[in-house]
Amino acid sequence: MADTKPFPLNAWYAAAWSHEIEHALAPRTVCEKDVVLYRRTDGQVAALEDACWHRLVPLSLGWLDGDQVVCGYHGLVFNAAGRCTYMPAQKTINPSACVRAFPVAERHRLVWLWPGDPALADPAKIPDFHWNDGTEWVGEGGTYYGLKCDYRLIIDNLMDLTHETYVHAGSIGHDAITDTPFGVTHTDTTATVTRWMRGIEPPPFWAKNLGKPGLVDRWQVIRFEAPSIVAGDVGVAPVGTGAPEGDRSQGVNGFFLAAITPETGRTCHYFWNFVRAFHKEDEALTRSIQLAHANDGKGLYDQDVTVLEAQQRAIDKNPRTPFYNLNIDAGALWARRLIDRMLAAEERQATPLAGAAAE
Amino acid sequence: MADTKPFPLNAWYAAAWSHEIEHALAPRTVCEKDVVLYRRTDGQVAALEDACWHRLVPLSLGWLDGDQVVCGYHGLVFNAAGRCTYMPAQKTINPSACVRAFPVAERHRLVWLWPGDPALADPAKIPDFHWNDGTEWVGEGGTYYGLKCDYRLIIDNLMDLTHETYVHAGSIGHDAITDTPFGVTHTDTTATVTRWMRGIEPPPFWAKNLGKPGLVDRWQVIRFEAPSIVAGDVGVAPVGTGAPEGDRSQGVNGFFLAAITPETGRTCHYFWNFVRAFHKEDEALTRSIQLAHANDGKGLYDQDVTVLEAQQRAIDKNPRTPFYNLNIDAGALWARRLIDRMLAAEERQATPLAGAAAE
Amino acid sequence: MADTKPFPLNAWYAAAWSHEIEHALAPRTVCEKDVVLYRRTDGQVAALEDACWHRLVPLSLGWLDGDQVVCGYHGLVFNAAGRCTYMPAQKTINPSACVRAFPVAERHRLVWLWPGDPALADPAKIPDFHWNDGTEWVGEGGTYYGLKCDYRLIIDNLMDLTHETYVHAGSIGHDAITDTPFGVTHTDTTATVTRWMRGIEPPPFWAKNLGKPGLVDRWQVIRFEAPSIVAGDVGVAPVGTGAPEGDRSQGVNGFFLAAITPETGRTCHYFWNFVRAFHKEDEALTRSIQLAHANDGKGLYDQDVTVLEAQQRAIDKNPRTPFYNLNIDAGALWARRLIDRMLAAEERQATPLAGAAAE
Repeated sequence: MADTKPFPLNAWYAAAWSHEIEHALAPRTVCEKDVVLYRRTDGQVAALEDACWHRLVPLSLGWLDGDQVVCGYHGLVFNAAGRCTYMPAQKTINPSACVRAFPVAERHRLVWLWPGDPALADPAKIPDFHWNDGTEWVGEGGTYYGLKCDYRLIIDNLMDLTHETYVHAGSIGHDAITDTPFGVTHTDTTATVTRWMRGIEPPPFWAKNLGKPGLVDRWQVIRFEAPSIVAGDVGVAPVGTGAPEGDRSQGVNGFFLAAITPETGRTCHYFWNFVRAFHKEDEALTRSIQLAHANDGKGLYDQDVTVLEAQQRAIDKNPRTPFYNLNIDAGALWARRLIDRMLAAEERQATPLAGAAAE
Repeated sequence: MADTKPFPLNAWYAAAWSHEIEHALAPRTVCEKDVVLYRRTDGQVAALEDACWHRLVPLSLGWLDGDQVVCGYHGLVFNAAGRCTYMPAQKTINPSACVRAFPVAERHRLVWLWPGDPALADPAKIPDFHWNDGTEWVGEGGTYYGLKCDYRLIIDNLMDLTHETYVHAGSIGHDAITDTPFGVTHTDTTATVTRWMRGIEPPPFWAKNLGKPGLVDRWQVIRFEAPSIVAGDVGVAPVGTGAPEGDRSQGVNGFFLAAITPETGRTCHYFWNFVRAFHKEDEALTRSIQLAHANDGKGLYDQDVTVLEAQQRAIDKNPRTPFYNLNIDAGALWARRLIDRMLAAEERQATPLAGAAAE
Repeated sequence: MADTKPFPLNAWYAAAWSHEIEHALAPRTVCEKDVVLYRRTDGQVAALEDACWHRLVPLSLGWLDGDQVVCGYHGLVFNAAGRCTYMPAQKTINPSACVRAFPVAERHRLVWLWPGDPALADPAKIPDFHWNDGTEWVGEGGTYYGLKCDYRLIIDNLMDLTHETYVHAGSIGHDAITDTPFGVTHTDTTATVTRWMRGIEPPPFWAKNLGKPGLVDRWQVIRFEAPSIVAGDVGVAPVGTGAPEGDRSQGVNGFFLAAITPETGRTCHYFWNFVRAFHKEDEALTRSIQLAHANDGKGLYDQDVTVLEAQQRAIDKNPRTPFYNLNIDAGALWARRLIDRMLAAEERQATPLAGAAAE
């Protein structure tokens, strides 16, 4: 695992929030590929390799001329397809002079980038992240850029919410999470962990937003979509109002959303949000939920970051130590299994003649 | 030497001052092993591997529940023997689930840890450091944690006090140190350098504490105990009062004490003290001696640190350069020889069938 | 290229400005060799290996005793030839105890050091840098010590001034540079790029210093001397006054000067100056030109540093990517070819029996 990349390349990864990409050059590293993003004058987002064909200087140090990027060193110009359209002091342009253009698409308020084979970049494969649209569900999230851990450690974290009991003791943690059994289902591209805590005292956040006294049924239905999307359907409803059977109309419901993008094998970008279908007009609530998650080291997710980065440092020190797994890891194990399948499939594609060559 | 660890594992190393270890989790790295120390409710010190069996998160990020450690990520609990006693959401505990427990003992105001084979951890082998007890000899020292050099460079430094003439020119340095011959003796586990400077002007520190005019006999008897303890018997007595022959009753006497613990092959923890048998009630003197040694970069030992870390950086740049030795290095060479013997013995133990396998 | 050093050792490299070397120890790293420089009492500059023979501690941590260097650890003394003349506590000095002494010479206000075979260090080979003498040409430069790029990237930069149009857009940049053809000539040790921009509007700097209205002929004649000296003859003269034909008497003329010294394979020291033959008494102009080049991140050369260090980081990430070249790189390619010849010659010298051994 130390030798191979831990991320598939033929996948859509969140590279930026849509609102971050304007008519200006924005560098990002996705799956160890340096990319420069910018919004064209027609509103489309373009993504080019962030290294000039000529001498590798980052194009993001240059500037835009209309929809083309001018290298800030010697002035080579590249269009949004990555083709060089101007070279200083010569009329003939080397037809091979181009930088890589990455498939890119905007959806669900995010810019998605495909770092692998462009021929395979089907927009239909963009993961389901519709809860982030800002329409049916409301919320404002954020990004941890360059978080210092393997992106899969965050998936592990989110696929097993027993960690809330410990990492987030005193806020959303609750012994009921740990005490309640859960189920795991999966498809070829998704794994889902479902836990129903029936007839429990609601934790403070949910009690307040439900606004009704008494015990509740609490649910956590966490859906992973390979290779790096997690959407967690969470909420409570008064006990006996039929939520476990499908009628959540008396309850309150939210989703935690995570699009986790490998930056390198040991760092990642974590685009997160928490969206809700209740008190949707309450902007102060939106802001307070955002701050509850990430707040300069004091938010819930900040607590996770501390643990995750410490875990990565420990892994770096113990490279050969295998992980041991508990029952609670069943969801995370399915997520990793789906990632491993994607990696194995890419490996086979990359060496199509390996079998023939050995004959 | 770059490939093998420069420290034996089957040895007691100082890991902390006793007063530093309370009923709370204290991380340390000893011989490249991450350890978490804590004092149990019965007053004993426990030392566990600082990486949860489950997913390697440092246990020191968690908390104590009585005498057990709770992992701060998923709540696994380990007792002071390292055995897992609780796993979240499962009743059956994997019997192999444990973290390593390190033999640990308190003696001479320090906590000693044995990073090697626990079956060999005999408390009788704790090095002689009784001068640090706080009874017969008085003094307060300190620790350089994470000092950026191979622990053996400090041993070299202390086994040859001619460096005082140069590194500590202007304070304890004295040409007499360099000019006076010395003898070296050794046993299987110790090496001792003895130097008597007879009939010299006492340096200011000793003149003041002796409180008598005239020339003195000055002694430095430095004892190394493998692999990493140095105790230096130093003092002066008025010339002609019999100190060289054994009667030090007219003089003043102290010990510099060093317990040097490898953190990694290139960093160490340096537990130091200077204790004395004179003016024992004078707490202001205790404090002034402490500050004279380590004082935010301005103390005597701070001067050594500057040299030692520069020396390590030079070694890192010149990995194949052998050291050259002078006569003054006779004591340090014996110390290194004793360490090398311990390393060779461990190497033989680690590969008991190497000979057989080759047959 | 990653395995072999990218710099010849048998060459004179600028190690310091003359005024920087006084009767005190000054450390430098040149071609991965740690050196300590100092001025002897007779005014000559000495250069010794900056690592004591005994235990590698940097001699630059010690002090001077007359013209000899005292090691700050154990007091070994080395004379300016690198021979040990004193060892503590022993009368016989090991005759092999010495540190390397490097050939060094002062010329053109710089201290030049030869890191290779001393037998080959012919002062006649010191590169031509006479414009820096402070006599015929006037100017005060500076040094970027430890600039984080391969020294050859600066040579590339200076041998192709089309970069001015982009990196220095808004100051000395000018489309004419890019639009005008140039010629390249070379000898065994030099490469020269010549560009004449005839009948153009002078850029602001030159217009002001020429002090005459109207169009100008502008020249840039850039001379590289292997392995790492660049001197650029630049200026303007009123159009029609014969400058292209050789009569520059009506114009204004300066030189940009660069002595670029490898510190490591990926860092260098960049000694620069801009000297002029006009308004030579105007010290405010001297100072303003100096600040225009390097001014705490805001100068012309500071802009280059940003680009060069980013380029090196990109090269580090893409070690196998070859550079592609444009017509504008013709001068830089010749410079690199001359360096490569020096490297190949050293390689042959270093393995004189390689052919015989293979037979």
